[in-house]
Amino acid sequence: MLYLIGTGIYNENLSRYDIIEILNNSDYIYIDTYTSPIDVYSLVKELTAIGISKEKIIVAYRRILEDEVDNIIKEAKTKDIVILVPGNPFIATTHNTLVSTAKKLGIKIGIIHGSSAICSSIAESGLHIYKFGGFATVVRREKCSSYRAYELIKSNRRRGFHTLILLEYDHETGYMMKPDEAIRILKEYGKLLDKDDLIIVICNLGKKNKKILPITISELNKIKWEDNDICILIIPGDLHFTEKEYLNLIRSELGWRKI
Amino acid sequence: MLYLIGTGIYNENLSRYDIIEILNNSDYIYIDTYTSPIDVYSLVKELTAIGISKEKIIVAYRRILEDEVDNIIKEAKTKDIVILVPGNPFIATTHNTLVSTAKKLGIKIGIIHGSSAICSSIAESGLHIYKFGGFATVVRREKCSSYRAYELIKSNRRRGFHTLILLEYDHETGYMMKPDEAIRILKEYGKLLDKDDLIIVICNLGKKNKKILPITISELNKIKWEDNDICILIIPGDLHFTEKEYLNLIRSELGWRKI
Repeated sequence: MLYLIGTGIYNENLSRYDIIEILNNSDYIYIDTYTSPIDVYSLVKELTAIGISKEKIIVAYRRILEDEVDNIIKEAKTKDIVILVPGNPFIATTHNTLVSTAKKLGIKIGIIHGSSAICSSIAESGLHIYKFGGFATVVRREKCSSYRAYELIKSNRRRGFHTLILLEYDHETGYMMKPDEAIRILKEYGKLLDKDDLIIVICNLGKKNKKILPITISELNKIKWEDNDICILIIPGDLHFTEKEYLNLIRSELGWRKI
Repeated sequence: MLYLIGTGIYNENLSRYDIIEILNNSDYIYIDTYTSPIDVYSLVKELTAIGISKEKIIVAYRRILEDEVDNIIKEAKTKDIVILVPGNPFIATTHNTLVSTAKKLGIKIGIIHGSSAICSSIAESGLHIYKFGGFATVVRREKCSSYRAYELIKSNRRRGFHTLILLEYDHETGYMMKPDEAIRILKEYGKLLDKDDLIIVICNLGKKNKKILPITISELNKIKWEDNDICILIIPGDLHFTEKEYLNLIRSELGWRKI
């Protein structure tokens, strides 16, 4: 059997008895370090603290989850395999492919959800969920085009809709894109976002050092980020007066002027 | 202090020690029965099982959370108040208003996320999250217009995007809209969805009787629903071949023909 288990943004699922039982009874636990940022060291520590043997934990990079995925599927035919995913699974098509491949071979699938960075970011932003018009990712130009993200922001803003943007992350090199770099990349595709335009940075969600920053582009350029800050961007469309009021309440708590 | 705590779709957050401590130390716990479907009886049972006194639990209807919200806010000035929300908070603007009003009075806010019905439905559907173009709700015509939902589905489909649709629910009367009724209401606004068009019904998410049904409109009309089935609809735009393959794998598990 193959389990995809979301840890949740606080790793809250590691305190569920049914999940601890699945983890204990499983033959191998692959920690997905490829599809979302993850603090592997803390996670392994939490797993051993709840009694999971270190021997069956495998830190899985892109190669294992994409190129060599058939090996995992083959194992799942006769063994109980867990893929442990930060947040909620299926934020990446990697998981869709994995489950499809397993289903084709008649392997039983178990999916357990956790709190998700996407839905929690929308919640923290104070923006209305009904006004979000989709999601995209920004990556470094040498890796892949982010034109789709640029286009989505443009078309959402035309319709008054908000856009949620995930930023590139690479566990193998430790690279985590910062908001100012993402905006710079987006602007290379065409005119977008003036210096007085507001964006919202959701930083270190689920962690003690969580920050919600409703910030103009020119303010953004003055911020110093820590290397391990994990950020999600929200590019607002038209703001309802209650949304604007909420963002200003956060800004005034931070000692910033009203927008 | 005012806490908004999501229970998660499995009520998984009720096994977190930090949350149990907040619940135990709080003066009142309002259970939000207004913004999402909830099984209050089971939730109260779970709360008492983890040692929460029944005396401080208040089952909160629309009136309490919207018309009389100032009473809650007033209490939170001097007491620790919890609003317990099924799934993840901020799916409804009710929560945004609540937090804004409290922030204006300088009341400290704590937000704890749980797994969300919206993100988990997207995950279960097998569709790619990047192709979702937004969310809407369908309600009975005598209550409110669902034209926005109709319009969103139309414009998303034109762009090839998927749409997630929440269905009306009324805890006070026990009414829960069923998928066929929602489709009937949507079609009253104009031409939409032929009998061979596929939709995905996500039913009873987080429960033992969860069902994922990738189903044509004509198949949908033959299904008998249980009164307490809680459903979310996904109206797909253009299907990538891997999405179509996934939906067909689910259909074949259910013994249904390929689409």
